[in-house]
Amino acid sequence: MEKLRSGYLFPEISMRREAHQKKYPDAKVISLGIGDTTEPIPSIITSAMSEYALGLSTPEGYQGYGPEQGQKSLRKAIAEKVYPNMGIRDTEVFISDGAQCDIARLQMLFGRDVTIAVQDPTFPGYVDSGVIMGQTGGADESSGGRYSRIEYMRCAPENAFFPDLATVPRTDVIFFCSPNNPTGHAASREQLRQLVDFARGNGSIVVFDSAYASYVSADGDKPRSIYEVPGAREVAIEISSFSKFAGFTGVRLGWAVVPDELLYADGTRVARDFDRVVCTSFNGASSVAQVGGLACLATEEGREAVRRVVGKYKENTRVLVDTFRALGKEVYGGDDSPYVWVRFPGQRSWEVFAEILEKTHVITVPGSGFGPGGEGFIRVSAFNSRERVVEACARLTSFLA
Amino acid sequence: MEKLRSGYLFPEISMRREAHQKKYPDAKVISLGIGDTTEPIPSIITSAMSEYALGLSTPEGYQGYGPEQGQKSLRKAIAEKVYPNMGIRDTEVFISDGAQCDIARLQMLFGRDVTIAVQDPTFPGYVDSGVIMGQTGGADESSGGRYSRIEYMRCAPENAFFPDLATVPRTDVIFFCSPNNPTGHAASREQLRQLVDFARGNGSIVVFDSAYASYVSADGDKPRSIYEVPGAREVAIEISSFSKFAGFTGVRLGWAVVPDELLYADGTRVARDFDRVVCTSFNGASSVAQVGGLACLATEEGREAVRRVVGKYKENTRVLVDTFRALGKEVYGGDDSPYVWVRFPGQRSWEVFAEILEKTHVITVPGSGFGPGGEGFIRVSAFNSRERVVEACARLTSFLA
Repeated sequence: MEKLRSGYLFPEISMRREAHQKKYPDAKVISLGIGDTTEPIPSIITSAMSEYALGLSTPEGYQGYGPEQGQKSLRKAIAEKVYPNMGIRDTEVFISDGAQCDIARLQMLFGRDVTIAVQDPTFPGYVDSGVIMGQTGGADESSGGRYSRIEYMRCAPENAFFPDLATVPRTDVIFFCSPNNPTGHAASREQLRQLVDFARGNGSIVVFDSAYASYVSADGDKPRSIYEVPGAREVAIEISSFSKFAGFTGVRLGWAVVPDELLYADGTRVARDFDRVVCTSFNGASSVAQVGGLACLATEEGREAVRRVVGKYKENTRVLVDTFRALGKEVYGGDDSPYVWVRFPGQRSWEVFAEILEKTHVITVPGSGFGPGGEGFIRVSAFNSRERVVEACARLTSFLA
Repeated sequence: MEKLRSGYLFPEISMRREAHQKKYPDAKVISLGIGDTTEPIPSIITSAMSEYALGLSTPEGYQGYGPEQGQKSLRKAIAEKVYPNMGIRDTEVFISDGAQCDIARLQMLFGRDVTIAVQDPTFPGYVDSGVIMGQTGGADESSGGRYSRIEYMRCAPENAFFPDLATVPRTDVIFFCSPNNPTGHAASREQLRQLVDFARGNGSIVVFDSAYASYVSADGDKPRSIYEVPGAREVAIEISSFSKFAGFTGVRLGWAVVPDELLYADGTRVARDFDRVVCTSFNGASSVAQVGGLACLATEEGREAVRRVVGKYKENTRVLVDTFRALGKEVYGGDDSPYVWVRFPGQRSWEVFAEILEKTHVITVPGSGFGPGGEGFIRVSAFNSRERVVEACARLTSFLA
């Protein structure tokens, strides 16, 4: 535990926000920081949860423990609606209380002795949970806080946000987030094919985090799931979430797919062990949340309602991208994700974060919080109302122009 | 992972139940097995959840991520209503999705190198999560499946369900469940005083599981919390749950208390590290569940409604205890817990389980599933309707008389 550097990124930002608000009590702070949804949940979904919750006070409606792996109907809806024609069976879908929790459970499954690789930059949860599990050595502050025993795969504009796998050493596990948080880059079909082949050749497990898959634009040829790539069932676990898909950040619901063909070197099924971890260290996602998840997926009306909300955030990213482009900034992401990734050459991320906060009362996220490769960037989130995004952009324009 | 013996107890029972139902498709199986609540949740609680869920579709009612540690109001209600006059601060209460999940997060905190002690018999989650974390050696089938490197503290009728601590070796962590699952024994004030002194003397951390505290009878002198014992704040974490207290087994809500005075040998606070584990591997309990939890505690009406439900189950335990006593059986528990612990001298637990299922279509839980010390016992749960408990007792009487 003592190896874990400083606070976890978002609590740290939250503390700085509080300090700022204390310093400027009248300032209208706008958060384009933590990826927290702001749009109300479509009422077709909340009505289902509301009705279910009320029913819990009746003998007919009451339900106690559900299956640890989740309700059959929800597992089936995910297999059919999220993974059409990808051969995913409902029994391979494990319902969870969110992708972050699944990362921790996967780390419990992998244990202390595995080696892991992560994109650099990427969501800090993969590394931090690995540090807590004892998979790493100490952090080297002189290299931007890299932990020893973790393979950092640099993903930058210079390499189309994808590592040259010929130079990446083998690890037991590869965490791969696409569309990537924070860069917003969605890996191309060819990139994912390379990743799957690399993992197959090395006998590695890919943990593919598709929490932002619903933001992938329909007009590119970018897979929303790794299971669109042949051979992925033999190497990849996919984790995903209703958080950014349906505004369930507070309701808490996600899932992991562990295909039957994913085997250990001795031929036993990884899914069998994951099932044991789930049954031992988890007791299923809240039944109310599961009913809400089913309402998102079960009808065309639910699916359309969710698509509309995602569409709103995608319009926000357009505003953000246009703003930073007009300011002459190098801007990435946005097309396939709710995150915009902006470079500030020659500056440190935390400096940029602090300067923007001080001058515009806008919260962003310092790119270096996602790994040393994020230094010099900030992440700007589209999760806010149109009005506030527009207001934030006006302030940023005055300040940065 | 491969060290983990057979299935987790309850999935195993569930499989046997399915097989039984297949063999006897017309049998009306009654479950007095898994401790799963059956009484509807009082409507004062479900209304609060229902209304909140509906509000999530409005701009005013929508909420995204809450604090990872839980809503301030709920933390405060728990500190004040569950721990009156025990000096527990709201900041020491961490809201969770259930005690089983907190056990896993505590095990992540403790890591692989700690030594642990458990009651024997006890809830299998402590041992199983320790095995998954790699804290133990292999299981020795000749000793009832004891894992090496775990200290099993025998708790039997012969020692008033409390170990002779003078003969128990020091461990880093002591898991202690009271009222105990499965024996139903609530430790006396004197027993807990001994436990706290033992931990203080050894520099051990006690993880006190009080998930069944609401079943402790008001007329005995048995603490509902370890913090009723002087000095406990310096040695004990308490985990607890709304599951058996308010019927939240499916809704999922619990909490852990980590007092500020609980320190590592180097003087740093355990709570600081637990906070990091929570922030890294958990994203808070479902907001809907938290609203329900607050409705249980915030008003006298809510608290009284919950007490009435617990009272119903306690009447069921009375029926069960009377039935087994009338059959001349040695019966324990029941007074302070929803579980009745029955001895079948000279028989193996799984045999008794199978025989009762075969002859009466009643599901119980084999005592040996809770540790080698449970061999020769079965656990019978009061979580069912009065009608079914009475029917099960009639069948048991015909069969065992």
